[in-house]
Amino acid sequence: MSALNRLVNRIIDRVNVNLREPGFDVGPYVRGVIPWAKFSRFYAFYGLTFHHPLHFHFEHSSIAGSYFLGKCIVDHSVLYKSDIRGDELKARGDVFHHSGLEIPLHDDEVIRIKDSFLVKNLVHNHSHDPENPEEFLIQNIVSLHYANIHGSPVEGSFLGPFSTVDLTTLHDCVIGTFAYVQAGELAHHFVPDGRIWIRYGDVFDFCYQFPEEVLKRYVYLNPGEAPKGIFMDFVERRKPDFEKVFDMVECKPAVAAAHGAALSRYAVVRGQTRVSENVLVAQRAYLEDAWLGVGSNAQENCYIIRSSLQGKNITAHGGKVINARLGEGVFVGFNAFLHGTPECHLGIGKGSIIMPHTIIDLKEPLEVPPDHLVWGYIQDAKDLAEHSLPLAVMSTCEGEFRRGAMRFEGSGSRFVSGFQHRLEHILEANGAYFDGSKKKGHAQKGQHIAFNIIQPYPEGPMKGLYPTIDICP
Amino acid sequence: MSALNRLVNRIIDRVNVNLREPGFDVGPYVRGVIPWAKFSRFYAFYGLTFHHPLHFHFEHSSIAGSYFLGKCIVDHSVLYKSDIRGDELKARGDVFHHSGLEIPLHDDEVIRIKDSFLVKNLVHNHSHDPENPEEFLIQNIVSLHYANIHGSPVEGSFLGPFSTVDLTTLHDCVIGTFAYVQAGELAHHFVPDGRIWIRYGDVFDFCYQFPEEVLKRYVYLNPGEAPKGIFMDFVERRKPDFEKVFDMVECKPAVAAAHGAALSRYAVVRGQTRVSENVLVAQRAYLEDAWLGVGSNAQENCYIIRSSLQGKNITAHGGKVINARLGEGVFVGFNAFLHGTPECHLGIGKGSIIMPHTIIDLKEPLEVPPDHLVWGYIQDAKDLAEHSLPLAVMSTCEGEFRRGAMRFEGSGSRFVSGFQHRLEHILEANGAYFDGSKKKGHAQKGQHIAFNIIQPYPEGPMKGLYPTIDICP
Repeated sequence: MSALNRLVNRIIDRVNVNLREPGFDVGPYVRGVIPWAKFSRFYAFYGLTFHHPLHFHFEHSSIAGSYFLGKCIVDHSVLYKSDIRGDELKARGDVFHHSGLEIPLHDDEVIRIKDSFLVKNLVHNHSHDPENPEEFLIQNIVSLHYANIHGSPVEGSFLGPFSTVDLTTLHDCVIGTFAYVQAGELAHHFVPDGRIWIRYGDVFDFCYQFPEEVLKRYVYLNPGEAPKGIFMDFVERRKPDFEKVFDMVECKPAVAAAHGAALSRYAVVRGQTRVSENVLVAQRAYLEDAWLGVGSNAQENCYIIRSSLQGKNITAHGGKVINARLGEGVFVGFNAFLHGTPECHLGIGKGSIIMPHTIIDLKEPLEVPPDHLVWGYIQDAKDLAEHSLPLAVMSTCEGEFRRGAMRFEGSGSRFVSGFQHRLEHILEANGAYFDGSKKKGHAQKGQHIAFNIIQPYPEGPMKGLYPTIDICP
Repeated sequence: MSALNRLVNRIIDRVNVNLREPGFDVGPYVRGVIPWAKFSRFYAFYGLTFHHPLHFHFEHSSIAGSYFLGKCIVDHSVLYKSDIRGDELKARGDVFHHSGLEIPLHDDEVIRIKDSFLVKNLVHNHSHDPENPEEFLIQNIVSLHYANIHGSPVEGSFLGPFSTVDLTTLHDCVIGTFAYVQAGELAHHFVPDGRIWIRYGDVFDFCYQFPEEVLKRYVYLNPGEAPKGIFMDFVERRKPDFEKVFDMVECKPAVAAAHGAALSRYAVVRGQTRVSENVLVAQRAYLEDAWLGVGSNAQENCYIIRSSLQGKNITAHGGKVINARLGEGVFVGFNAFLHGTPECHLGIGKGSIIMPHTIIDLKEPLEVPPDHLVWGYIQDAKDLAEHSLPLAVMSTCEGEFRRGAMRFEGSGSRFVSGFQHRLEHILEANGAYFDGSKKKGHAQKGQHIAFNIIQPYPEGPMKGLYPTIDICP
């Protein structure tokens, strides 16, 4: 048995021992899901800049196709085409504020991935876990295609495909396919497929459940296979465009980025695309006939196609926007799928918030009014009415409130202001407000970046594994 | 002043303190010779295989465009487009035989480059220095374009462009432009430009001096500039072909290599080229309409153009063969320039030895008979008569012997047998005799190789320097 095979088995055992209480076996979801040959076919790469603190350490791992930025330690793990973006790691001496406590960091924060198996994941952290501020830990995790691990450490858990764990520390949990969780901390919890759940202590609790038959059309999972459905068809169809981009050591951008903007050379750019001032386009973003207005950002695994974004638009990790016009400040959450067609165009008014994991897949033209909160599954105006609320109305909600398969409880104003506060932070962090010298963010810091390309052993018993690599200043 | 600028000054100071006795200042030859911008334009790369012991350590160095294989430690050095090929390093437990002594190695041998400035150099070692068998040290060295450091450590020295130091330990020496030295050990020695010198203790001494006016046409050096002349024009003209090869992460070979052969993806291959069984084509070799017969090899910085090599041909580092037909077993030494034209074709009979740094630049067709030793500068049959000898005749020489600008002293038979013995070793080491399972050499061990690509800091005070990188199994 190859060293890589032994490593995969070892990870399965470690995750299973964590999940013994729900009695969940991750083995069938891991074995065979990536053909062995692929682990030695794709290179890993990491970014080198003058701005980001530097420490990479890879040990006894397979990291094919994966990208790293910042301080990352990976051991005894399999990361396949994943993005580990440590550009919001805290630095030694920073003070972490939590519940009135001030916690100064005695060392630079690092992302540490240990005994885990991540496929096409996005890991990004502006860490919100106060318990171990120097280490953002991902340990004993199996996390499948296009899952997002965002802002909090996770351990002993299984994350289904297209799921998102956002600002939620996990211990021994199972997160279902396309489930979205933002809940602070969870232990021994099972989140069903297609559950959208945002809870902030006793302050508010938002919950939406996708109908099973709808979800199955978009994504479903057979053990031992890659997920299937509309989402996978959509990304797989565009894979050849990425292959061209990855084949070159250097890659001239197809369009010029405006002042203060960063356009990753690992993004696909096609057609009449405009990258305006202070825009961030991350690696693995896909732009085709896309107008990105000032201060917008297109994050990892985004697809923006035949669409215009008027400015200060956030398209979060995995968000897809097709045949749409987004007003200023529209937010599109993680893994949202906004699918207009040339005949059924989608318009979204300024300031509206498209919740993470929203599916808008139109059978008629649709205009979302400004300043609305939108969630769930929407095909037409009738669906929109059942799956949206003006933010102003939402802000007046107190107590319990139901609309269709959505249930809200608590303070609507805290929910809305919390969201808006976070969006402001995202814009700031991404450099949307850069004035030419001050308020630098990721867009400006990512402009001068070199990418180092590393490969695994091409043959022999270690085939597919990487040697031990340590990079520091 | 940038960190890179400070590093270069530091190297100059260290080399100069070694060369204070000849009173040689390397500064003018180093400053400005590579434009600053180039240090951050080219990536470095290292080879990863199952066969070669692995340890790379790069620290406070600029290694733009350089290649590494085996165990290499580089600190406080500038390596520009150099090849550091550690595929003949000895392993822990190997026994080094020297003058009847048996010296077992207590650790794997490493190539260590320290406080040195190497431009487009080739470093290859089958180390012959018994004094420090675990470390092949290159320290306090300035070595200019296309110099070869082969088989022995060097320290405190300046190597001119296109010079070769072969099996010669240097202490505080100046080696002139296009000089070739194979002399065991030298200290505080000045070898003039265009001097070809092979000495083996009291056994033999071969010496040839290129005429100054001839040498100047082929290569000359103005301080602070790249060397000029026919050699540089020749390689610079073919640079764009290499750029294409280096731009791709993976590169499909233009031709298929036969069984047991290794064709580097960093070689240029054009036209009707044939790579036969057990052939080794190293990175930075250039093949155009080249027929490489069974067991031949084309080493780093080789150019083989419109030529056929019948088999078991060695074209050593930097050898150039144009419009020629080489019989079986013909050896072409380091940096030799064999330049026929379509009208003035060059034939070389089987078993002939073209000494390192030989220039054959024809103004009429020429046939070198089989089993001849050839040296010096040759344009026609008359020159050939003055610059060659049948090996059988050479083997009978005893005492002093002169022919033109060549002077030989000592045992001709020892000289010829020493040469032939070494050529056999080179063929063996390169895998020319591989039988499908046994007698593996570089050609077979280099077949499954992955290349990792590393870049320097793209901006900021460390621009052009690499972070500290350590790679081990």
